[in-house]
Amino acid sequence: MAQSESQNGGGAEKTLSFKALKPQLLVEVPKAADAVVFYKAAFGAEEVSRTVHPKRKAEQEAPAILSAELSLSNFSFLVSDVLDASASDEKVFESRVVLFLETEDIIAAVSKAVSAGAVEESEISEGDGSYVGRRVAKLKDPFGFNWIIATPAKESAVVEA
Amino acid sequence: MAQSESQNGGGAEKTLSFKALKPQLLVEVPKAADAVVFYKAAFGAEEVSRTVHPKRKAEQEAPAILSAELSLSNFSFLVSDVLDASASDEKVFESRVVLFLETEDIIAAVSKAVSAGAVEESEISEGDGSYVGRRVAKLKDPFGFNWIIATPAKESAVVEA
Repeated sequence: MAQSESQNGGGAEKTLSFKALKPQLLVEVPKAADAVVFYKAAFGAEEVSRTVHPKRKAEQEAPAILSAELSLSNFSFLVSDVLDASASDEKVFESRVVLFLETEDIIAAVSKAVSAGAVEESEISEGDGSYVGRRVAKLKDPFGFNWIIATPAKESAVVEA
Repeated sequence: MAQSESQNGGGAEKTLSFKALKPQLLVEVPKAADAVVFYKAAFGAEEVSRTVHPKRKAEQEAPAILSAELSLSNFSFLVSDVLDASASDEKVFESRVVLFLETEDIIAAVSKAVSAGAVEESEISEGDGSYVGRRVAKLKDPFGFNWIIATPAKESAVVEA
């Protein structure tokens, strides 16, 4: 990704390229494992990969799923346990979908979105939790939708279950 | 789609095929037009198609958008105005994403999902609003996420803006 990050100017006129758009379904820990079972049964989804929480894995029977990728034909979506209970309203877990957008040029992508009116809720940084092995930024758009802008995962950083 | 609907048995062992998975972003009318402008500016999204409400189109300057499809590289998502204010809680519009899943075999798809534990919130019927020209069913999965199972749009039924 390095070659294009110098484009982080104000112009942002070049065409941004996105590699994937995946709905990420956030559920309250430890429901993600059940959710994966359900989506396999309900839609015939296939599990492409699963990243689990290393500490929780050692401590308990059902390790938290940081991210499981499920595919349906050519399309995929993510299921993740939400570990922190910082969300005071339990309702937030009832139907929380984040729009996960992969790009090689995260700096230009974030810059362009913010210029257009998105709010950067967390700036570009090394991801943890669901986003380990990536650089990620979290944006909220003017219509209330949550976007994760992320670089593609580095193969070496993916912890398979 | 007719040739496969006879498969609506209890077995549902055959492989379901899905043609597309698209996040559908629901906004309160008439914000969809602004949202489309924003996603073009923020992500360089391209508008693939737009279906507007025929009655509202005649009555007011900004017609309601039943569905606008935006593409990012090979991926697309939908933006729709929500016309009915039946949702008592205004918050529902703050970040409401529906998972829109296209398949030629809607009967088998719904049957399989319901067998797995999804609740059919509206049964298979001719779509209206965002879903005109399709047959659609609405499901809520056990984790609170909303899915629309839909047949692909018939070309002739799409009303371009």
